[in-house]
Amino acid sequence: MTALVVFAHGSKVEAANEAIRAIAAQLAAKSGYVAEPAFLELASPDLPGAVQRLAHRGATRIVVLPYFLAPGRHSEIDLPRIIDRLRGIHNDVKIEAAANLDGHPALVGILLDRAAAVLEEL
Amino acid sequence: MTALVVFAHGSKVEAANEAIRAIAAQLAAKSGYVAEPAFLELASPDLPGAVQRLAHRGATRIVVLPYFLAPGRHSEIDLPRIIDRLRGIHNDVKIEAAANLDGHPALVGILLDRAAAVLEEL
Repeated sequence: MTALVVFAHGSKVEAANEAIRAIAAQLAAKSGYVAEPAFLELASPDLPGAVQRLAHRGATRIVVLPYFLAPGRHSEIDLPRIIDRLRGIHNDVKIEAAANLDGHPALVGILLDRAAAVLEEL
Repeated sequence: MTALVVFAHGSKVEAANEAIRAIAAQLAAKSGYVAEPAFLELASPDLPGAVQRLAHRGATRIVVLPYFLAPGRHSEIDLPRIIDRLRGIHNDVKIEAAANLDGHPALVGILLDRAAAVLEEL
């Protein structure tokens, strides 16, 4: 079984964490893969917890999707370290991190849509 | 003149700030509007600086685009406060904030693309 994990920072604002859970649910619906949220801090589950649960459910491939708009400490340093540790724990599971969102061509389109919604009103 | 501002948190990691400047440049190219980056902290220009420069260049409408993936303190509390202050300073400029990226249907597609790139290799 292949599983996806949407990995975000986590926030004291619960609505922010709910937004991550919601996008993970949408990803599951769209992809057909199991997809779960996971957080670096301030929200639950954390990535080790999410990976453990997925391994338990039979995941043999886990792709971690850093839900960040720009490169930074969390996706470039923290995440690789956590994944290294998890590979040591779950030897029978292939765990890989994907690229963060930066550079995807659809991002500009999102900003254009957001701007257009305001410009119609101004 | 209408101008767009891509408003991000700002980072100690200069590559992250460069990513914001790059998306602002892409937005300018795609939209035909003047588009500038601005940062809450840790990078320059800040939003008051960006708005002042745009007003100087003749902007009469400025749409601030919060470049955040989830609602949170920065887009929900900090940004409205800054914008209120800026409206007091620049009475002749219409300044409005757009919605952040959360909830845009294209986000799931970006995650699917990021996952697919890894799954091809695994």
